[in-house]
Amino acid sequence: MPTAYNEITGRSIERLAALSDGIFAVAMTLLVLDLHVPASEVIHGQGDLWRTLAGAVPQFISYVMSFMTLGIFWNGQQAQLNSFTRSDRHLSWIHIAFLFAVSIMPFSTRLLAGFIAYRSVLIVYWGNILLLGLVLYGSWRYAIRAGLLRENVTRDRQCAVERRILVAQGLYAFGACLCLFNTYVSIGFIILVQPNFALGLRLPYLSEV
Amino acid sequence: MPTAYNEITGRSIERLAALSDGIFAVAMTLLVLDLHVPASEVIHGQGDLWRTLAGAVPQFISYVMSFMTLGIFWNGQQAQLNSFTRSDRHLSWIHIAFLFAVSIMPFSTRLLAGFIAYRSVLIVYWGNILLLGLVLYGSWRYAIRAGLLRENVTRDRQCAVERRILVAQGLYAFGACLCLFNTYVSIGFIILVQPNFALGLRLPYLSEV
Amino acid sequence: MPTAYNEITGRSIERLAALSDGIFAVAMTLLVLDLHVPASEVIHGQGDLWRTLAGAVPQFISYVMSFMTLGIFWNGQQAQLNSFTRSDRHLSWIHIAFLFAVSIMPFSTRLLAGFIAYRSVLIVYWGNILLLGLVLYGSWRYAIRAGLLRENVTRDRQCAVERRILVAQGLYAFGACLCLFNTYVSIGFIILVQPNFALGLRLPYLSEV
Amino acid sequence: MPTAYNEITGRSIERLAALSDGIFAVAMTLLVLDLHVPASEVIHGQGDLWRTLAGAVPQFISYVMSFMTLGIFWNGQQAQLNSFTRSDRHLSWIHIAFLFAVSIMPFSTRLLAGFIAYRSVLIVYWGNILLLGLVLYGSWRYAIRAGLLRENVTRDRQCAVERRILVAQGLYAFGACLCLFNTYVSIGFIILVQPNFALGLRLPYLSEV
Repeated sequence: MPTAYNEITGRSIERLAALSDGIFAVAMTLLVLDLHVPASEVIHGQGDLWRTLAGAVPQFISYVMSFMTLGIFWNGQQAQLNSFTRSDRHLSWIHIAFLFAVSIMPFSTRLLAGFIAYRSVLIVYWGNILLLGLVLYGSWRYAIRAGLLRENVTRDRQCAVERRILVAQGLYAFGACLCLFNTYVSIGFIILVQPNFALGLRLPYLSEV
Repeated sequence: MPTAYNEITGRSIERLAALSDGIFAVAMTLLVLDLHVPASEVIHGQGDLWRTLAGAVPQFISYVMSFMTLGIFWNGQQAQLNSFTRSDRHLSWIHIAFLFAVSIMPFSTRLLAGFIAYRSVLIVYWGNILLLGLVLYGSWRYAIRAGLLRENVTRDRQCAVERRILVAQGLYAFGACLCLFNTYVSIGFIILVQPNFALGLRLPYLSEV
Repeated sequence: MPTAYNEITGRSIERLAALSDGIFAVAMTLLVLDLHVPASEVIHGQGDLWRTLAGAVPQFISYVMSFMTLGIFWNGQQAQLNSFTRSDRHLSWIHIAFLFAVSIMPFSTRLLAGFIAYRSVLIVYWGNILLLGLVLYGSWRYAIRAGLLRENVTRDRQCAVERRILVAQGLYAFGACLCLFNTYVSIGFIILVQPNFALGLRLPYLSEV
Repeated sequence: MPTAYNEITGRSIERLAALSDGIFAVAMTLLVLDLHVPASEVIHGQGDLWRTLAGAVPQFISYVMSFMTLGIFWNGQQAQLNSFTRSDRHLSWIHIAFLFAVSIMPFSTRLLAGFIAYRSVLIVYWGNILLLGLVLYGSWRYAIRAGLLRENVTRDRQCAVERRILVAQGLYAFGACLCLFNTYVSIGFIILVQPNFALGLRLPYLSEV
């Protein structure tokens, strides 16, 4: 029977969650690994050191932003996994694709940190966030259609999850568009908007999200 | 009694799963870590940057392929672990050998990404995949013989797991042979075949797998 | 209903613990990754090798100190997580902020190991420890106020946790002040005080902690 | 009450196991990360590549040996953790010290791989293994004395665990002594002896272990 294998694979939400936590943990720690300590030969005093560290502030901001982004998506994914009764093979693969997007994040961040003034780099970075959002949205739609949600996930909650992903992605897209003016404006906008998702603050336009 | 120690070691499927998830998570994230950001001294404009990134596309393809391969084997291993009632010392060591093959994967991938046109490198890469398949096959055969399977794993399911490993390895071996023509043909074949395993699509020859 | 999403996100203490264990594991292992092996071209005999390794002793001390610090905070965080009945979105984000401070620790340690005689570097390192302490203290205060503690956590225990964080941070702050004399005195003080927290020894001033 | 904090910290065997699995997973994957791919500028054909890879065989052997060693100690630690009913603060710290020894293993391995013919390096490597064994032995003795073992751990099993650690360390020490002749003899001996521990084969002298 061809489907026999399908039935025994990809059922365990717990192991999917464990793999996800592992990949998020490695990706989030590797972000900060890229903060390089200046070579001791170049540094001849406290002044040199401070100047070098101060020069790394834009990089540091990229890392904080990426750590926060990964935190937001970790929260989003775990909210989804907590809402599923079980997994199937397709859902497993949707989440492996999601984890691929997570694992590229340190690369996108390094790229952004190295070339913070380049518009194209900001577009790549935003593309990474867009991919995270698209796959997570796809995961939710698929789980609804395939009947994998817990019974206590009401229609209202289903919509809340979808609306939230869409609004967040809309704001990220708007932020990315701001790079037409200046990449720093884009990054500033994203950094200002993120705490709203993280902390659930009620900014005017977001109170109903 | 000499066997006393054997009895208290290597029983816990849960910890074996946790170690596996950890090693898979690190290996899958490290893959992408090797994507280097170009040095800022070499880049004098958006054009330079795009050209450098475009030059890294073959590398990027190697990483996507390896991430997918690891995803497939993670799924395969977890399907097995979910089918065991308990572990014993031999099974633990079979899976530690499997995890060794997983941990070499970033090395094989780096080698392939660096020397994508070399036949010998493709053979090394395929050898790594073969090792993953062999050990996983050995794990399943051993578990059947040692009576470690859950009762609800029917004879049909047992065969489905074995057949799947064999067909997959047959296709990987065929793909590796294609390097007689050209290594790009090999890689193209593997990339086209993998989604079938991942998503369970029904290609003509694979519908009964 | 705006709060719908808040209700389904950030509930799972288990996944928060899993992410934390992962980030601590990666950060603690990466610490030692920075211990570089001398290049074989520079080494012409056993004498050369010993001299190079002996020169790395101050670095090694920094790593041991950081590993111990992370061990102490891992213990502190897990004691808190074990005391919570559930999480909510704010608590999740407090702990993600805590994990951010954990993930910077390898950077602070590398900085300290590279510039062990610089006062400013010691202040940065202490700032990292202070951040860990502040966020952990905030987590506990928030959990009390939001009613997230288990019922068996008595008022006495609540105070024990708070007192412990405050005394530890007081000692770390005192140690950091000692860098007015010499950074080695600071580091020596911190190394001598830490086993007290780790092993619960009863030094005169700490017996009531 | 001074002991209040001691009571709420360090109780959870599960989280200790999770941290351990994480650190083992990172350490075991990082081992192989050190296998460097030759720079493409140096390689002008398949012959060059094979010669460079063949030159890395002694390094590869060091990594296989370390992976196996970590696998053996992971098994040993998990057998212990499975035998405990609960943890206490001292036991937690004994295992954090054990994990420190685990996290140095990639450094010792890199050192051995780089200077495989140096007696002093082999002594450092053996010192690392000795430390792993000592701490694990200490953990078991402490757990017996503090009454942390499960009731079904008989006196016989207690002795089996101790005997096994002592015999293994005796063999490692003997292997290290062989470096008086030649470091390759040492390494050969350790590699030949390890599968016995891994697979529980019954060599003449070890059948009663």
